[in-house]
Amino acid sequence: MSTTPIPYKIYLDENEMPTAWYNLRADMKNKPAPLLNPQTLQPMTAQELEPVFCRELIDQELDDTNAFIPIPEEIRDFYKMYRPAPLIRAYCLEKKLGTPAKIYYKFEGNNTSGSHKLNSAIAQAYYAKKQGLTGVTTETGAGQWGTALSMACSYFDLDCNVYMVKCSYEQKPFRREVMRTYGATVTASPSMDTQVGRKILAAHPGTTGSLGCAISEAVEAASCKPGYRYVLGSVLNQVMLHQSVIGLETKAALDKYNVKADIIIGCAGGGSNLGGLIAPFMGQKLRGEADYRIIAVEPASCPSFTRGTYAYDYCDTGMVCPLSKMYTLGSGFIPAANHAGGLRYHGMNATLSQLYADGLMEAVSVKQTEVFEAAEYFARIEGILPAPESSHAIKVALDEAIRCKETGEEKTIVFGLTGTGYFDMYAYEKFHDGKMEDYAPTDEEIAKGLSGLPTV
Amino acid sequence: MSTTPIPYKIYLDENEMPTAWYNLRADMKNKPAPLLNPQTLQPMTAQELEPVFCRELIDQELDDTNAFIPIPEEIRDFYKMYRPAPLIRAYCLEKKLGTPAKIYYKFEGNNTSGSHKLNSAIAQAYYAKKQGLTGVTTETGAGQWGTALSMACSYFDLDCNVYMVKCSYEQKPFRREVMRTYGATVTASPSMDTQVGRKILAAHPGTTGSLGCAISEAVEAASCKPGYRYVLGSVLNQVMLHQSVIGLETKAALDKYNVKADIIIGCAGGGSNLGGLIAPFMGQKLRGEADYRIIAVEPASCPSFTRGTYAYDYCDTGMVCPLSKMYTLGSGFIPAANHAGGLRYHGMNATLSQLYADGLMEAVSVKQTEVFEAAEYFARIEGILPAPESSHAIKVALDEAIRCKETGEEKTIVFGLTGTGYFDMYAYEKFHDGKMEDYAPTDEEIAKGLSGLPTV
Repeated sequence: MSTTPIPYKIYLDENEMPTAWYNLRADMKNKPAPLLNPQTLQPMTAQELEPVFCRELIDQELDDTNAFIPIPEEIRDFYKMYRPAPLIRAYCLEKKLGTPAKIYYKFEGNNTSGSHKLNSAIAQAYYAKKQGLTGVTTETGAGQWGTALSMACSYFDLDCNVYMVKCSYEQKPFRREVMRTYGATVTASPSMDTQVGRKILAAHPGTTGSLGCAISEAVEAASCKPGYRYVLGSVLNQVMLHQSVIGLETKAALDKYNVKADIIIGCAGGGSNLGGLIAPFMGQKLRGEADYRIIAVEPASCPSFTRGTYAYDYCDTGMVCPLSKMYTLGSGFIPAANHAGGLRYHGMNATLSQLYADGLMEAVSVKQTEVFEAAEYFARIEGILPAPESSHAIKVALDEAIRCKETGEEKTIVFGLTGTGYFDMYAYEKFHDGKMEDYAPTDEEIAKGLSGLPTV
Repeated sequence: MSTTPIPYKIYLDENEMPTAWYNLRADMKNKPAPLLNPQTLQPMTAQELEPVFCRELIDQELDDTNAFIPIPEEIRDFYKMYRPAPLIRAYCLEKKLGTPAKIYYKFEGNNTSGSHKLNSAIAQAYYAKKQGLTGVTTETGAGQWGTALSMACSYFDLDCNVYMVKCSYEQKPFRREVMRTYGATVTASPSMDTQVGRKILAAHPGTTGSLGCAISEAVEAASCKPGYRYVLGSVLNQVMLHQSVIGLETKAALDKYNVKADIIIGCAGGGSNLGGLIAPFMGQKLRGEADYRIIAVEPASCPSFTRGTYAYDYCDTGMVCPLSKMYTLGSGFIPAANHAGGLRYHGMNATLSQLYADGLMEAVSVKQTEVFEAAEYFARIEGILPAPESSHAIKVALDEAIRCKETGEEKTIVFGLTGTGYFDMYAYEKFHDGKMEDYAPTDEEIAKGLSGLPTV
């Protein structure tokens, strides 16, 4: 514990970095509901998951009792290449806002994949390699996960097949090119390579795809190719486990300077970043050791927490994946194509869903243009150009800091800055040119999405 | 001085960051030749420079006696937002190469501008603001400098007009968009806004521009607009002074772990990164305190050091700037348009030119495809996607490390990794698709460029 002034950026030393991931589920009284087999509607067994997922990752997925899972040395070595991520004190922002609030953000964008996704990608690639697999398949929407997985696979010399949502494939050729630099094969989804892709194309000719479709294709590809498994960058509990490194580092950095957070804010799409950031703080809350306000921020265009239902649903559009009990808008819900960032997933991680259902965290939704206004404001003051996803958290952090100014409260606000906006300049351009539109589904659209929920 | 193992990344603490820039010229016996007035061919006085440059920056430009110039607190505060930059031990690369060499690189890409350019941009913006100016004009080629200056101007609330070489303006719309995010005005050069632009367009209709043309336009714009001055991202001695922060941090990080470098490698376009990186090491060499091999790496397509002449020449195509004595290919030399990176400047910083003329450093030129091969190899092993410019240094660092493997020598190699390749994926795409060409000027082309040198 240091009494020196808090620097602009807190970097942990290498020997202060976490050596184990924290499994939040171990401390939950109400455990998240189990995954269900889509055929039998019975809880999925490890054996049933094996054709699709890597063995050790299945163990992690199903483990809700061990609080700490040691991080293998090979993964810790890789983490040392781009971690610890800095916890940044937003001195300039505080000054500009004239707020008594103390603002911190954990910046996960300082690696070539540009986001926190690498934390889980390297773990999943490691376990695939350890199992002696040839390669992995996955989907990517905005492209952050695909890039991260490409880097991880390159490091462990694994083949990597990425199904990239067609609209991103076309709008973000440079993302695709980064993946190629790391040796990945990138296919626009839906494609003619898979049965489900052909079926979707037949039903919706000219579709530009969706994350749900791409997941279905990647799962099918993994099942059909010997020596391949499917890996996923969000939603799953294993991913949230790996991402706990974000929260563990954040907490260690705060503890080092004897800082206690009051409010913790993260953007929420599938939930991996949010779950990772809040994990150790929520753990304290669950154990009654400390209290925090924890806020999930989602886009108004895809409001799973704030307008969805807590129910069992399919994780993908093709309905080939297990069912998960989660806040969902229905697996048939297609978020507005005009939404610029990621966070366009119809569902939510099961653990976060249970925590939200239990009233342990809050959720708010924000509109696209106010998110980009916050993004540009932040970029100019703090010097970091944020990804649209991360900017959802920025928007709410700003709101809370302004509230502190009004009330005079000296709250400590911590938010997750998950990535850079380098590959989102097309969206920024629309924003600058005044061509960005806000969109929120009507009540009828929400009802329609939910009407397709399976009966469990 | 620490005896602990060397971490993957050495971060200085905030209180270990440099508080003064180091002015290498103070320790040189043979001082760099003075700038000459293009009309009188007499050394430029501070007074003559004032219509174009900021006052305090002129003092820095002309100062060859003071070894240390204190860094103003406002600039040090800004530096704290994105510095110290890590000095990275390339453990993975060493292992992969099987070399006994120890490889370190100073990574300057972890800020939104994506390169080291921000180090000087913030200094120049600060002095412009201090002088009470309204704004600054500049040119940008690959876009790194324009982005950096936009960020710096936004921070100090200065207007920023960027003349962007037309081919980059068209090929890199996202670079342009980042500058717009920071509030800059970006104009494709040559433009109809300036006299020199109109003249160039009349003589070469349909030209996609060059750095030399864009400089001429920016200088003219600054001279014509009250309250504006021109700023430049490389070539000038003031820029090299600001960039000494790179070398000072590098040396402090090495000293902290008691490491002595043997070889120091940097890419060289106008010389700002190279000059900044080597400054304190060259200082030791000049004072006889230590010896180092210092290697400048330039592209075979624009080989100022290795095939140019040491002579007085114009800094810009329009011949409106002062003359500088430097290694040059002639201000009329137009580097091949197919070259992917920056480093396409016909001349070289005057200080580095004098040091090279005095035999205090080496220079090599490398071909474009071998640079991209090195870039991709490095990206896959070290996880950082490098800018094409920086990859010139990578190529030679790899060569030296492989030589160590052959000879068994345990040399310590330090190189500058100046930036990320995020905005260069178009070039990577060409490389992946096998469409990248090597180019080196013929002897006739070199002779033609040099035939236009002014008689001084």
